[in-house]
Amino acid sequence: MIDWNDLAPAELTLLETVFWASGASRHELASRADFSKSKANAAVAGLVERGLIEETGLRDSSGGRRPETLRLARSVGVLVGIDLGATSLDVAVMAPDLTVLAHHAEAADVRAGPGVIVSRVRSLLRELLRRCDASASQVIGIGMGVPGPVEFESGLLVNPPLMPGWEGFSIRDYLREDYRAPAFIDNDVNLMALAELWRLGRQLPNFLVIKVGTGVGCGIVCHGEVYRGTEGSAGDVGHICVDYEGPRCHCGNLGCVEVMAAAPAVSRLAAEAARSGESPLLAQWLQERGALQPEDVGQASRSGDVAANAIIQRSGQLIGRMLASLVNFFNPSHVFIGGGLSRIGPLYLASIRQSVYHRSLALSTRHLHIEYAPLGERAGVIGAGVLALQETLRRRGQVQP
Amino acid sequence: MIDWNDLAPAELTLLETVFWASGASRHELASRADFSKSKANAAVAGLVERGLIEETGLRDSSGGRRPETLRLARSVGVLVGIDLGATSLDVAVMAPDLTVLAHHAEAADVRAGPGVIVSRVRSLLRELLRRCDASASQVIGIGMGVPGPVEFESGLLVNPPLMPGWEGFSIRDYLREDYRAPAFIDNDVNLMALAELWRLGRQLPNFLVIKVGTGVGCGIVCHGEVYRGTEGSAGDVGHICVDYEGPRCHCGNLGCVEVMAAAPAVSRLAAEAARSGESPLLAQWLQERGALQPEDVGQASRSGDVAANAIIQRSGQLIGRMLASLVNFFNPSHVFIGGGLSRIGPLYLASIRQSVYHRSLALSTRHLHIEYAPLGERAGVIGAGVLALQETLRRRGQVQP
Repeated sequence: MIDWNDLAPAELTLLETVFWASGASRHELASRADFSKSKANAAVAGLVERGLIEETGLRDSSGGRRPETLRLARSVGVLVGIDLGATSLDVAVMAPDLTVLAHHAEAADVRAGPGVIVSRVRSLLRELLRRCDASASQVIGIGMGVPGPVEFESGLLVNPPLMPGWEGFSIRDYLREDYRAPAFIDNDVNLMALAELWRLGRQLPNFLVIKVGTGVGCGIVCHGEVYRGTEGSAGDVGHICVDYEGPRCHCGNLGCVEVMAAAPAVSRLAAEAARSGESPLLAQWLQERGALQPEDVGQASRSGDVAANAIIQRSGQLIGRMLASLVNFFNPSHVFIGGGLSRIGPLYLASIRQSVYHRSLALSTRHLHIEYAPLGERAGVIGAGVLALQETLRRRGQVQP
Repeated sequence: MIDWNDLAPAELTLLETVFWASGASRHELASRADFSKSKANAAVAGLVERGLIEETGLRDSSGGRRPETLRLARSVGVLVGIDLGATSLDVAVMAPDLTVLAHHAEAADVRAGPGVIVSRVRSLLRELLRRCDASASQVIGIGMGVPGPVEFESGLLVNPPLMPGWEGFSIRDYLREDYRAPAFIDNDVNLMALAELWRLGRQLPNFLVIKVGTGVGCGIVCHGEVYRGTEGSAGDVGHICVDYEGPRCHCGNLGCVEVMAAAPAVSRLAAEAARSGESPLLAQWLQERGALQPEDVGQASRSGDVAANAIIQRSGQLIGRMLASLVNFFNPSHVFIGGGLSRIGPLYLASIRQSVYHRSLALSTRHLHIEYAPLGERAGVIGAGVLALQETLRRRGQVQP
């Protein structure tokens, strides 16, 4: 296993720069790391000699000699990314440049509790590592996203509303039984934001990622870094009010965006439309399938079902109301929409956009982009991989017990 | 005039550190600048010799030899801070450690336009400099706050709703006619946030400053820096909706917090309470004074007037509704309330707090402090002084034309 303490500060900086700008030329790396050409060349030579970075061949040149590009070497080891959602579990083993080597996704119920879920994670990991011929000692870092607020330094969940039984449970301790590599736990939406930041080579300093699934959450990138807030609960936007006369949420307040617009609300409205006779199509599916999911509403909408369209527009409009407040406050350049409801179709995105543009200030929206998250469902595990590598480098492989 | 280009990077860093931690000992400075003791001592010696920093005598010791403390030297020159509000103008000349040497405040109407206001600023400045025996060439930096969104790099106002006629006007060019020192323009609430950050010696990384006066604005400190957003409009929270069935705002939307809770709304509700006979006290004052201001509502409240109390509670509750969304999203450690309405009395703060605690998540509020801004009305000019010095050092006295 690599001893990160052997590396000089300049070498660590350069490794991190190579990671964030995979495929960049030596010249670009020097400029990004704010190094002189000679300092960058010396650090690159040292890292290549130790087998920490490798050349990936020549890139197309914009004129002149074709630049060689660099990436973290495969021989460094592997990264583990775990994305635990309220109803899903994704686990991946990745190369240090985040190429996915093995991946498994399955349905899961986070309410089954930490014992059940974490032992499933451990057995899946053993299987995935076997599949890519890697041993536990080759794992250099583990990242994991969970659907609740996390105190980032301790890795412990704090008051997780969707995760009863997980409060104070140390996922890190359990993973330590199998792996010497450090493990880092974060909120799932923060990891989606980190994944998009990595995809963009850290070139967008201020953007938001909104996840709409079982709950509603927001990942915040500010000054080029994921922003977690004072208690680690920044982006916990599910209980922002979008209707002061709205229905009561489990948190006790009226009209929270989560109770009115997240996946359970969409399913509930679909069942109502089926039972009331408003949508014969949804009624038929309800009878055939026993229950209706947001995917069914999306399918009905694509078949031209008017009631389904209205349900999608309503959820999009309410998400847009909340987002309009955030856009006025935060003035981001981009908002990326992810989570299960983002698979419901283009009408959803159009409804969100319309609502934001209607309610936000002209100055904040004149160059604002609102799009579905480009990394889609892979964002969770990729973000977990980014977290694993970034924090392992920053802490030289050490994490507080 | 000082040529900042003569300074080594370490000296500039140390100067900035002394500025942000005025009165700190050499030992503290070394630790804050992340310098070795010997590197810090060498830089301090060089700066003392050039007359850029000076000793301020001995501080109480916590044991052992009493530490000498340092500050930016008076001989460096003076800073100018200008705080233009919608209805007020404050101008101050300050020493480099932000001690106010001369100050003038007067009522002003920003709608009079840039020509009138800026020539008044120039003549006030000449008078204030004369009062403290300083010449125009001794001014090392100028900071100015304005009540509208500013594109920070160019110093130009962008779509300022309260400042028709100022769009595209270069305040900087006008000030350049009198001063060689660089001038920096920013939104007034950003400067309040910068002032509190300086007061706190940069020790709170994540907090908000809310200004409630003619409009409603928010200054954001994130990762220890003022956050201005992608277009410079971050914190433009006056048009966040707090009642989806509320009255129409001049922006075209319904129920914006500004139209329902800012000073004009408080004055309007006071006049209504006077005319309807709900408040005999306000009715009497309306007759005597011709119009009612928020200060009158505060005075009536302190006399036990029930209608006045209700008006204050209503504005506080609506500000709290908006703030609850921001607290859920941003998870700040502190929220400081400033602006004209913060002088209305303690009931206002209590109403804001109650509303935030009612509507925000427990995790975000368990250690949250909501207080009146400690610097109060001085925050604007002090923030302008902080901006002037910080940006002058960062840009070595150069600013884009």
